[in-house]
Amino acid sequence: MARVVIDVMLKPEILDPQGQAVQRALPRLGFDGVADVRQGKRFELELEGPADEAALARVREMAETFLANTVIEDFTVRVEESTAPADTAGTGGTR
Amino acid sequence: MARVVIDVMLKPEILDPQGQAVQRALPRLGFDGVADVRQGKRFELELEGPADEAALARVREMAETFLANTVIEDFTVRVEESTAPADTAGTGGTR
Repeated sequence: MARVVIDVMLKPEILDPQGQAVQRALPRLGFDGVADVRQGKRFELELEGPADEAALARVREMAETFLANTVIEDFTVRVEESTAPADTAGTGGTR
Repeated sequence: MARVVIDVMLKPEILDPQGQAVQRALPRLGFDGVADVRQGKRFELELEGPADEAALARVREMAETFLANTVIEDFTVRVEESTAPADTAGTGGTR
């Protein structure tokens, strides 16, 4: 099994109201020094087979046709080794 | 400016209806071989200063108190170099 991560973000030129709402709230919560916030979606796909070129091409096709609206969104696809459950940082591990 | 990415995902033991909806739809769209799909949020923060330890501690604090519901979600924090606009893969670049 291989894990493939698809990140979907609004294109830079597209207004991001969710990101702006987060950014405006941060100073009120005492967090300064953040110039910009963008919010998007993250998909983690567990593939039954290996993440070879053919599989990645299929994943890109899935992202392009189904997971992202490529008119307003960009996406990236990357392979993440299958992480054991312990790697999911409950307390915010830094990678 | 440094870009810090916060990924927020439901804890593995928490049911992910959005991910399941995507997973059920994939075969209908002709995409087989995906054993599981998890959907979460991705935040990209542009920091005004460097992403040093103090800044990362603040970002983890933001994530813990504001961006993630740590009762049901895990989050990870990682520093991404500031990518020039060309790096945003419109057609799905693979990293």
